[in-house]
Amino acid sequence: MALSGDTVAILGLGLIGGSLARALRQSGFSRHFIGYGHREPSLRRGVELGVIDEFTLDLDEVLARADIVVLCAPTLVAADMLADILRRCDGRESPPVLTDVASVKGNLLAAAKDALQGEMPPNLVLGHPIAGSERSGVDASSAGLFVNHRVILTPVAGNDPEAVALVRAMWASTGADVVDMAVEEHDAVLAATSHLPHVLAYALVDALASADASEDIFRFAAGGFRDFTRIASSDPVMWRDIAIANKNALLTVMDSFTEHLSDLRGAVEQEDAQRILETFSRAKRARDEFAAMLAERGQSSP
Amino acid sequence: MALSGDTVAILGLGLIGGSLARALRQSGFSRHFIGYGHREPSLRRGVELGVIDEFTLDLDEVLARADIVVLCAPTLVAADMLADILRRCDGRESPPVLTDVASVKGNLLAAAKDALQGEMPPNLVLGHPIAGSERSGVDASSAGLFVNHRVILTPVAGNDPEAVALVRAMWASTGADVVDMAVEEHDAVLAATSHLPHVLAYALVDALASADASEDIFRFAAGGFRDFTRIASSDPVMWRDIAIANKNALLTVMDSFTEHLSDLRGAVEQEDAQRILETFSRAKRARDEFAAMLAERGQSSP
Repeated sequence: MALSGDTVAILGLGLIGGSLARALRQSGFSRHFIGYGHREPSLRRGVELGVIDEFTLDLDEVLARADIVVLCAPTLVAADMLADILRRCDGRESPPVLTDVASVKGNLLAAAKDALQGEMPPNLVLGHPIAGSERSGVDASSAGLFVNHRVILTPVAGNDPEAVALVRAMWASTGADVVDMAVEEHDAVLAATSHLPHVLAYALVDALASADASEDIFRFAAGGFRDFTRIASSDPVMWRDIAIANKNALLTVMDSFTEHLSDLRGAVEQEDAQRILETFSRAKRARDEFAAMLAERGQSSP
Repeated sequence: MALSGDTVAILGLGLIGGSLARALRQSGFSRHFIGYGHREPSLRRGVELGVIDEFTLDLDEVLARADIVVLCAPTLVAADMLADILRRCDGRESPPVLTDVASVKGNLLAAAKDALQGEMPPNLVLGHPIAGSERSGVDASSAGLFVNHRVILTPVAGNDPEAVALVRAMWASTGADVVDMAVEEHDAVLAATSHLPHVLAYALVDALASADASEDIFRFAAGGFRDFTRIASSDPVMWRDIAIANKNALLTVMDSFTEHLSDLRGAVEQEDAQRILETFSRAKRARDEFAAMLAERGQSSP
């Protein structure tokens, strides 16, 4: 018998969890939504908005009643919560299917295995929707947030195939494009395309802000700088947690970037016009192809 | 007698030169516009569009007839053209006022002094409008391009005060906010806020494009990455020239950035949560203040 996704519990009701609940209600994939978390006002607001049907502050009740539990807590909190949930579920005959939306997968897999003495919980299917918004909180949630966006699942050996199928079907019903990846590949790709750019933007703004002429520097910066540094306005706590959770993959891409930058520094110092032009031209071609691909996929450009 | 700005020559008719001509015609600051350049089709198009009134391929004619000559050539070409122009004007009784729009000022000042055996030409007032567009060419030009944008002038000892006043009045008539800066300060500030971000974006995209998993990397990149790397789609020739023209200031900020990044790398490696959070938080505060300042100035945000 295929598993049911009728009752979904959202653990941590913010932009992502709220948008997922709205999308699943709209698609008819699930019919009942339970909120759980530490911030009662968000949960009350979720009921007011019709995003969830009810909420509880009792985690065991959630685990007993939900078919699918979606962990939407921040990266490092999620690892602790996941370990706690797995210990609570250990030995149950039909535990809920567990999934999450965190930006790093390796640390969660490690936390899960630690909690169960090295065993892989078959009902745990880690996932990561590549979607977001400059706004946050359940008030910003929207049923269309995942349409045309990628959701990466990282199923592993030991997973129950029915649990994987259920999580895949859940995300597909939101309009997302669901793909599978190995945990290590996910963390490497996200380190390169998301975690490194955030670290670079924070490092750049911090370097300029600490310069002697920092007031003038910001006074004369323009639109290109605004775009380039937008991600330095992201939540510092969230990004600190991601940097630590994905430490190894992040250090690897930081080192690769630093090596490229150092090469480019050499070319500028030597006024090696040909080498600078080759580097900039290669980068422009890759960036233009990327923008074209995003546009094709229906995500705005350039 | 105050100098006249009645006849303006635009040397290199693209987005910036075309927009300046349109703005000066609209404000009534100038009445006659002569185009000069190596690309006759752009010049013909400029006449068709009513941006310029006429064009010539004879530089001496331009220098004899214009009240103000605005050099709108790319950075390194501008240095050569400026030297040529100054030699042609040398000894003339009433040479036109010369100005430019290039992104680097130090190399132009050096080229000017070289051309005149170390003397400062009193009629040369270097300038830099901090404005642009993702589009280029005279077809993209617009009279409103400079409204609420900064124009930096870098007058020097030896400048004719009337020439400085004329260039200042010219830019003020376009709706720009005209400010003065020392040449070295201009080049340092622009290296920090514009040249370094471009180099970082090019280096990042090139590093990722040369990685083994580059296809996956770009396939799973999302909106934040698009914004962060937008400037890597800029013209590689233009940015190569800027990197070489502003070499010393660029190397200085590259080194300062690399030092900050290396500190941050150490904090990540040591999982120093406090130090990472402090850095990210300082950067977010500075970035948020910058975005608020841009918004106040009437430039879109965040």
